[in-house]
Amino acid sequence: MMEKTFVLAPDSFKESMTAKEVCMAMERGLRKVYPRANYIHVPMADGGEGTVQSLVDASGGRIYEKEVTGPLGQRVMAKFGMLGDGVTAAIEMASASGIHLVSKETKNPLITTTYGTGELIAECLDRGVQRIIIGIGGSATNDGGAGMAAALGARFLDSEGKEIPRGGGGLDQLASIDVSGLDPRLQEVNLIVASDVTNPLCGEHGASRVFGPQKGATPDMVQQLDHNLAHYAEVVKRQLGKDVRDYPGAGAAGGLGAGLLIFTRATLKKGIEIVIEHTDLKNKLAQADYVLTGEGGIDFQTKFGKTPYGVAQAAKEQGKKVIAVAGYLGEGIDTLYDEGIDAVFGIVPGAANLEKVLAEGAQNVERTCENIARLIALSGQDSPLI
Amino acid sequence: MMEKTFVLAPDSFKESMTAKEVCMAMERGLRKVYPRANYIHVPMADGGEGTVQSLVDASGGRIYEKEVTGPLGQRVMAKFGMLGDGVTAAIEMASASGIHLVSKETKNPLITTTYGTGELIAECLDRGVQRIIIGIGGSATNDGGAGMAAALGARFLDSEGKEIPRGGGGLDQLASIDVSGLDPRLQEVNLIVASDVTNPLCGEHGASRVFGPQKGATPDMVQQLDHNLAHYAEVVKRQLGKDVRDYPGAGAAGGLGAGLLIFTRATLKKGIEIVIEHTDLKNKLAQADYVLTGEGGIDFQTKFGKTPYGVAQAAKEQGKKVIAVAGYLGEGIDTLYDEGIDAVFGIVPGAANLEKVLAEGAQNVERTCENIARLIALSGQDSPLI
Repeated sequence: MMEKTFVLAPDSFKESMTAKEVCMAMERGLRKVYPRANYIHVPMADGGEGTVQSLVDASGGRIYEKEVTGPLGQRVMAKFGMLGDGVTAAIEMASASGIHLVSKETKNPLITTTYGTGELIAECLDRGVQRIIIGIGGSATNDGGAGMAAALGARFLDSEGKEIPRGGGGLDQLASIDVSGLDPRLQEVNLIVASDVTNPLCGEHGASRVFGPQKGATPDMVQQLDHNLAHYAEVVKRQLGKDVRDYPGAGAAGGLGAGLLIFTRATLKKGIEIVIEHTDLKNKLAQADYVLTGEGGIDFQTKFGKTPYGVAQAAKEQGKKVIAVAGYLGEGIDTLYDEGIDAVFGIVPGAANLEKVLAEGAQNVERTCENIARLIALSGQDSPLI
Repeated sequence: MMEKTFVLAPDSFKESMTAKEVCMAMERGLRKVYPRANYIHVPMADGGEGTVQSLVDASGGRIYEKEVTGPLGQRVMAKFGMLGDGVTAAIEMASASGIHLVSKETKNPLITTTYGTGELIAECLDRGVQRIIIGIGGSATNDGGAGMAAALGARFLDSEGKEIPRGGGGLDQLASIDVSGLDPRLQEVNLIVASDVTNPLCGEHGASRVFGPQKGATPDMVQQLDHNLAHYAEVVKRQLGKDVRDYPGAGAAGGLGAGLLIFTRATLKKGIEIVIEHTDLKNKLAQADYVLTGEGGIDFQTKFGKTPYGVAQAAKEQGKKVIAVAGYLGEGIDTLYDEGIDAVFGIVPGAANLEKVLAEGAQNVERTCENIARLIALSGQDSPLI
């Protein structure tokens, strides 16, 4: 018989395994039944946490660290990736300016800044890249990306020509923006923003109202932050001639979406689409007899741009068979069957607390994939088992 | 295409579903993919808890209740089954004399008695059955089945001709056994004892040493009980001419195995074999394209006579494909692949406590079996999905 080809394209299992580790566990399981099959690893992500790791792993690139300014002005070690092509960098804004870098007590979107994200972009520019992929989920900020732009040379001034304080709380003092010192390389580099958020900058569906509370904003602060971002958009429009206020995605990451649109040549794109493109997934899928995907959790939300959905859609375009595994199967997984996920299996072997489930993720993926392979072999014509 | 036939032969999922309920959940899941397939339900058991229910369900029989003497002399409502053939009864000794009928504080194998089990046998005899299947797991007793025999007319007397006290502690006073009043129907009825235990009555591997402690025996009590059973065997041998002391299985259920061998025309058989025979499993398997089995837990012990193993062995004889599901997958399941279980899947959808897992068993079996069917369909030639 022809040897089968399995394309393994899972997301990470959060707090348990990176996507690459999931690929390896999948292969270990499948290989027990199909020892001579071809296994193509495509560690995936959807633009959220793990995206840099996935792009680096899929391209044979490397992770670097750089000390930058954290959301509260503290020093933090942020990670970024250089992809295998040598001309593409990948950043997650959360690595420099993420909500995990503030404590419950210090959450305060009036003062948190995206300055460190700007420093990461500058570092990538210094490395001479042509393209920067930037994932903007998980922010602690609501500063419209002003901090990011400041780190790259823009100056945000009050009516007396003094720099305004960093953070979303200072933007009401903004009178003018001096872009004369803005890094000129920003007009050359292709900046691709991974964002599934389509919220505008201000108003009912804007950054402050929708995402402010989870960043620590009280109802009064939400009002203030929303007002400040509107004022910021007004100054930008008047002075720079760019109207980003209602642009879908401008409200992503506390308005960092807007900031990137204002100060760089950014294009916004769905995270999973960027990852599919930069992992060359579609060409790899063309070789597949079976595609295995998965994520820590799969449920009705998976349809909204998560990896197993994106992989399934891409696979279905080519008529490929897709099997998913997950550490948690939630409500509504039956709605995925029509979306290209042919079958989905939980990996958890029995009643167990989350800690144990997370610790034993790899062996559970391995065992489940072994049995998936056994069932494939049992049902197919070319069974090595019977 | 020819419609497929699925034979559904699971055990119960203890504390979650009866075997019949598992069959129904399996069918609901499979039917979503194969709506026109044939589904043959064979609710199974292995001679342990659930055996009566399974035999009744598989044969279209009925469960009855009878008030009998509990292990401590209390009144208990015990269940027994009349099978669909009208001439076979099924008993679980635990229903009358089980460990669940004594509390941690009142566990005491010196006084617990199998008298109620004898009353259940008598009730079956009164109903005119030709055959009694008796499962003897889960006993609270260590009386060598003397209580059981007493309920059926045997008299256990001390040297003064007075009846000795019930329970394993009184057997040292045994001087003679009067079987003149023993129910004569016991010599007619075919009594089939479901027991996987091969322990002898006495000694190092005997009932008292091996099983006494879990019934509440202290080390001193174990000594006393073992001595008493040896004395009992001695009296039986001398007076009735039966030497059961070293018979494999005589030590089952605190020596009830011995008692049944002494006082009835009993044959001991592996529980799963009895159930396979009385559910007509083999003839049903002959029609199967796929066999689904399962149990609450599957692990290395499954090989030692549990239902999924028994079903798989019977199915393999006929070259049938066997898929198992379980609420808990333990160590050593890979050793089952060579024993006829082609693939095994856990049903638990994620980290969860036991209570939740038990409560949601049916929906989890259903979802898992739906996806098993989806994968079969995907891998097979006659897929209704693609």
